[in-house]
Amino acid sequence: MDEEVPGSLGTTSGLSLRLLQMISSFTSLLFMSLGVEFYSYTAFCFLVTIMGLVIPWSFTLALVDGYSVLIKCPVRQRAILLIIVTGDWVLSVLALAAASSAASVVDFLRSDQPSCLPKFCSRYLLSAAMAFLTWFLSLISALFNIWLLPSL
Amino acid sequence: MDEEVPGSLGTTSGLSLRLLQMISSFTSLLFMSLGVEFYSYTAFCFLVTIMGLVIPWSFTLALVDGYSVLIKCPVRQRAILLIIVTGDWVLSVLALAAASSAASVVDFLRSDQPSCLPKFCSRYLLSAAMAFLTWFLSLISALFNIWLLPSL
Repeated sequence: MDEEVPGSLGTTSGLSLRLLQMISSFTSLLFMSLGVEFYSYTAFCFLVTIMGLVIPWSFTLALVDGYSVLIKCPVRQRAILLIIVTGDWVLSVLALAAASSAASVVDFLRSDQPSCLPKFCSRYLLSAAMAFLTWFLSLISALFNIWLLPSL
Repeated sequence: MDEEVPGSLGTTSGLSLRLLQMISSFTSLLFMSLGVEFYSYTAFCFLVTIMGLVIPWSFTLALVDGYSVLIKCPVRQRAILLIIVTGDWVLSVLALAAASSAASVVDFLRSDQPSCLPKFCSRYLLSAAMAFLTWFLSLISALFNIWLLPSL
C-alpha cells in the first residue's frame, strides 16, 4: 500500500462517493415510483430497473469501503478490483442511457402532451436529474478505481 | 515505435474504424433528416447535432490515419494522443446519450401516438440504431487509444 488514490476502493472519500450514489439513485427511484404511473413508459421502466441495480451495488461496495476504513486495510486484490471497475463502468453506461432516455421522454411529454400534469412532470424531471447525478458519481468512482488498477 | 496496438491511431484497422464511424453516423443523420420532421423533437435535434459533430471528427482522424499509414510513421506525440482520447470519450458519451434519447422517443411515439406513420417511425428507429452503432465504434476507438497512452 504505497499510496492512496482518494475516491478509490477502501478510502473514506470512496465510501462517501458510494453513499452519495445510493442517495441519488434512491431519490431518483422514489421520485419516479411514488404515485406516478411510470410503468406505462418503457424509458421510465428502464430507469427504475437501472436505479434498482445501482442501489444494491453501491450498498455492497459502501459496506466493503466502510469495513476497509475500520480495519485500516484496503482491499488490493487485482481480480476483485477488476470486477468492481467492470461493474462500475457497465452501470455508469447504463445509468447514462437510462437518464437520457427518461429526460428525453419527459421533455417530449412536456412539449406535446396536454395530459402531462405539472406536478407529475416535475417529478419525472427531478428523477431524470437525479439519474444524471448517479451516472456522474459512478463515473467518478470508476475513474478513480481504474486509476488504481495499473499500480497493482 | 516498439509495438502496434491494432485499432489505435495510425494503423490500418484504426483507419477502417474511423471510416465505419463516418458511415454509421452519416447513415444515422440521413435517415433522421431526409423527409422527416425531426426538428419538432428535442431528442432528434440532439441526435442530429451529435452526428454532425462525429462526422468531421472521424473524417479528420481518418485523414490522419490514412496519412500515417501511407508514410508508415504513426503519430506518437503524447499531447496529441491525449486530445484525441479525450475527444473520443466525450463524443462516445454524447453519442450514447443521443442514441438512447432518440430510441426512447421513438419507442414512445410507436406505442402512444397514432400519428406516427410506420414509414417515418421505422426511419427514426433505423437512425437510432445507427447512432448506437456509432457509439459502439467510437468507444472501441477510445479504448484502443487509451490502451496506447501509458506506453508513450
